[in-house]
Formats: sequence, C-alpha cells, structure tokens
Amino acid sequence: MKTVRLLLLGFGVIGRGFAKVLIEKSDYIKKKHGIELKVVGVGEYNGCLVDEKGVDLKAALDLREKGKWLDMLPQWKKITTKEMIDKVQADIAVEVVPSDIKTGEPGAGLIEAALKKGLHVASSDKCAMAHRFSELMNLAKKQDKWLLFESSAGGGMPLMNLARECIQADEVKSMEGILNGTTNYILTKMSKGGMDLETALREAQELGYAEADPTYDVEGIDAAAKTVILANDIMGMNKKFSDVKIMGIRGVTKEAVQLAKKNGYVIKLIAEVNSSGLSVGPKLVPENHPLNIESNLNAVMFKTDIGRDVVIIGRGAGGRETQSAIFSDVIRICRDL
Amino acid sequence: MKTVRLLLLGFGVIGRGFAKVLIEKSDYIKKKHGIELKVVGVGEYNGCLVDEKGVDLKAALDLREKGKWLDMLPQWKKITTKEMIDKVQADIAVEVVPSDIKTGEPGAGLIEAALKKGLHVASSDKCAMAHRFSELMNLAKKQDKWLLFESSAGGGMPLMNLARECIQADEVKSMEGILNGTTNYILTKMSKGGMDLETALREAQELGYAEADPTYDVEGIDAAAKTVILANDIMGMNKKFSDVKIMGIRGVTKEAVQLAKKNGYVIKLIAEVNSSGLSVGPKLVPENHPLNIESNLNAVMFKTDIGRDVVIIGRGAGGRETQSAIFSDVIRICRDL
Repeated sequence: MKTVRLLLLGFGVIGRGFAKVLIEKSDYIKKKHGIELKVVGVGEYNGCLVDEKGVDLKAALDLREKGKWLDMLPQWKKITTKEMIDKVQADIAVEVVPSDIKTGEPGAGLIEAALKKGLHVASSDKCAMAHRFSELMNLAKKQDKWLLFESSAGGGMPLMNLARECIQADEVKSMEGILNGTTNYILTKMSKGGMDLETALREAQELGYAEADPTYDVEGIDAAAKTVILANDIMGMNKKFSDVKIMGIRGVTKEAVQLAKKNGYVIKLIAEVNSSGLSVGPKLVPENHPLNIESNLNAVMFKTDIGRDVVIIGRGAGGRETQSAIFSDVIRICRDL
Repeated sequence: MKTVRLLLLGFGVIGRGFAKVLIEKSDYIKKKHGIELKVVGVGEYNGCLVDEKGVDLKAALDLREKGKWLDMLPQWKKITTKEMIDKVQADIAVEVVPSDIKTGEPGAGLIEAALKKGLHVASSDKCAMAHRFSELMNLAKKQDKWLLFESSAGGGMPLMNLARECIQADEVKSMEGILNGTTNYILTKMSKGGMDLETALREAQELGYAEADPTYDVEGIDAAAKTVILANDIMGMNKKFSDVKIMGIRGVTKEAVQLAKKNGYVIKLIAEVNSSGLSVGPKLVPENHPLNIESNLNAVMFKTDIGRDVVIIGRGAGGRETQSAIFSDVIRICRDL
C-alpha cells in the first residue's frame, strides 16, 4: 500500500465534494490501485486544517454542513493556503478554489506555489488554466511534476486524459463541441419547447442550471475559457483567451431556431478548434448529428488522422462529475509516484 | 530512443493496415513517444517474413497489392507463425489473424504461445478473446505481461483503455450500447428510409457495410462476442459467450419500426451489461437519447458511481479505426517497457 499525501486547496462546493467522494471511495481506491489517499491539509481563505496523520474530513464536513466554521476544530491553524503549501510536506496539491475568470487568481498563484514547492498538481480551475496555461505548463515541465486539470474543461467527460492515454498514435486534427451546459439547455428549450431565450433562461435559473448572473455562460465566455484549455492541452497549441473569436447566444431568436428546425437543423453554441483558430459561436447542426445532444449535456468530437471521429458525451459540470475527473487526475499522478 | 521489437501475427486486411499506418506514423511516434517500433517478423499461414534488422514492410505491402506472394522476398522463411514466436526475439506480438467465431482459433492459440514465450500481446481478435478471456488474462497475469485488445470490441472507440486509464476512481455499474455497425445501418434505414429489413440489408451489402453472409451481424452474434469482452474487461466479470441472452433483428418488422417512430422512439440492437447479466437484443430507444446514433456508427454508455453517464460514439470497425486502437495498445505497452 502506497500512501499519498494530499493538500486540498479550497473547501467550497468542489473541495467538499472531493472530501465526500474520498470518504466514500477510499476503500475502493486502496483495493483497486493499492493507494491510500491521505489529506494532510485543507486550505480555506481564512485559515487551514493541518494534520500530518490525516485531516478529519468527516468532522470538517459535518461542521460546514451545520453552517459552522472550521476554526472550531483542533487541527485549525490561522495560516494562509500559501503558507500551508510551504510548510506542510505533501505529494499532490488538489487545487479547487473559485478563481476570477478575468485574472485566473487566486488559483493560478496557488498552482504556481505548489509546483515550485515540488508538488504535483491536479486542478479543476478553468480560470487559472485558461489565463496562464503555457506559463504553468512550462513550470510543471521544469519542475518535472504533473499538472493535470481534466475537470477544468468538460467536467465528467474524460477529454484530456483520453487524448493523452488512449489515442496515442493519433494526431488530433480538429475538435468541435458543446462545452457549456447552460446554453445547451436554453437552446434545447428554444428548439423543442418553442420558448424564447429569456423564458428558457429563466427556467434554467429556476432549475439551478444557470447562475443568477448568466453572463459568462450566455456570452460564450465560459465555453471560450474551456476551448483554450483543450486546444493547448490536446492539440499542443499555445493560445490565450484573447485568441478565441467569441459570439454568445443573445442574438439567437426564437424565429431563427424554428426556421432551422423546419430545415432539419438545430442551433448549438459550438466551440471549434482547427487550423484556422479557436472560436465559440452559434452554429447550425444537422438534427441527426452526434453533437445534437439535448438538455444540459456537453459533447466533444475529436477528428484524428487515424481513428477519425470520436464523440464523447457527458455532463459538463456538477458535483459528482467533476469529482470523477479530479480523482482520475490524482490517481494518474499516484501511479507515477 | 527506445526500440521495441514487434511480431506481426497475420498479414490480412488488419495486418497490412497495421503495416501501412506504421510506415505513415513511424516518425510521429518516434517524436511524440521516443519509441521506434520495429517489426522483426510477419507471420502468415504459409510462412513468415523474419528480419531482426526490421522487415521491409513496404516491399511486402507492394507485393501483396500486386497479388503476389511473400515468398518472393529474401526474408521469407517456410516456418509456422508459432515457430516464429518461438525462435525470433521480440517484445510485443500484434495478433491480428482472422479467427473462427465458434472456436476463437487460431488466434487464441497464438496469443497463448506469445504470452508463454514472454511477449506482451496487443490483439484485435474478438473471437479469441470472447472464447478464452479468463484463461488468457490469467496467463498474462501469471507471466506478468500486458494483454490488450482495445480493437476487438468497439473498434475506433477507446472503451477499454478509457475505462482503465481515465475513469479510475469510478466503478462502472452498467454499460449499454450499439456494438454492431451493420445492424445499426439496417435499423437506421428502416426508421428513416421506411425500408423493410431485406431491402436495407441488401443496401448495406452493396455499400460493403454487411458481409455476403450477414448471419453473425443480423443474429446478434458479433455484438454478443464484443459484449462478453467489455463485460469481463471493464466490469471485472467472468462471463462466457454462452452467458449472453441473444436476440437478433430478424424479427424487427417495418411496421414495428414505424410504430416506434410515431411514438418518438427508434429500435436499436442494444447490448446490455448490468447486475442481471449480459444481453443483446432489439430495444426501444427514445429519439432524443444519446444512443440514438445513425448509419453504421457504434456507441457505448457507461454508467459509473461517480461520473454518472459517459457516452462514447465512433466507428465500430474499419481499417483506420481499428489501427488507431491497436496502436494505442502497442504504445501503452511500450511505455512500461
């Protein structure tokens, strides 16, 4: 049995989800992979839980779910997450803080600190990776550490791990896909339910599929950040967020959707990566095309030189789906330790 | 640069396809993976090409495409493939002979011989694996060698490699999918084109999607063999071909297909693996379901305990798609050498 020490950077929705899945799946991971995953530090914005014997995750989760604060636990230390990275001996940092889509911080800074300290990193941080992809990847390379971020783009779909581990002699020539569940839900409701955009958006908000401020989804910003990550990671590009031509779905009218439907098409917010660049925008998709997926699902089609077209469909985000991807990264790293 | 020596067992359609892709992608594989793949032996039913410096694959392909026989080459030896496995030093056997669906031979015997000689094996042999799965896997384990067979079930879709490498903390709880392209083409034509089964089958034969004798496809035998492989490999089962409840599509009438359509469904030949067992048979699938894919495409939905539903869509078979899968297996093995 190999014991691997983790620092969990962030104890928000994703961080707590990670802790829950770890409690649930710990025995399975021991049995299947011969690996004991031990969280030796949990970083939050107002202090950290640190215990080299393993943080009591159940106690921490219990407190949080009762709306209480973690400083009630004896393991609590009033240090910053960066100080914890610096002081606590560990193997992998699991970086799951909510970062700013305009700056990629604080996540990017934490990834940098962890790599510099000699930790491998598994991150769910779309904002950090979209903003400082090349810099962080170069740092990881220089430090000879893994930096994996499957959950940052495409959630439950194994896209980057699949490209790296499973289609190895193939060169991915282009990608296109639906990378934002909220807009896909809205467009599905406009096509199938005959709704206009505002009504469909309100319904998505009521169901929790859209944020109170849906700007980043509706304007294509969220999909664009994911597009940068996938293009750089899977196709070896060196693109930045500003390289993506972005058009959101605000201009998609009920009439346009119905006209498309009459002609055997649906309108989808499609992210594209090919030799002419990166784009996100509304596109016509034939009704019988594998990318015509409904509700809040995501899908990506890889076109490769040998295997041709492979399509992956899954939930793009959500508590459990995101965890599936984070754990895949963590275990991938563990296998090399 | 690591040189890895291959024995290519079989020089039929798949074997020649392997040689072509190797010639085409050799530089890419060297550059990307630091691996030189060198074929030191090619086995055919009437003799073998053997050259420890590397068999001249171009010359062999040229002769074959001119309808000539390989014994015109100086590297030709009148030995059996089993004798070649025994005599020629190599690292990986690529087993791509056409085996009998009723016995799994001669492929299963060749896999056994290669493993016993201490070779790793990448096989495309659905028949061999469906018939002697547990026995061959146990032998591989005993010999501490890889036995991979991604291309044997689901062709261009990275199913087994994906489950092994990319969704590692997840437990796959059930699978369902379309594993036979021929019947999917026929059922699509019955639903969209209003054809009856016989007409659709004739069209599939004219297009080369169906064999002159389509029995194994139409009766569900082909899908059942693949189902056994996926169930055993991905879900750790210990099933045999005779454990699959099989119903083909002969009984699916034009009227049934049209009635389903009127109610928002399509009829698909669905392979299912879950706690109640293995089955292949015609099922109703809602029109908006991700498994409602058209033409001769294949698709598989994994349901897991963490990531929930992931669907993979791709071509199930075909020259290039099969090669993509074989090369993924070969390179996966190389990384551990």
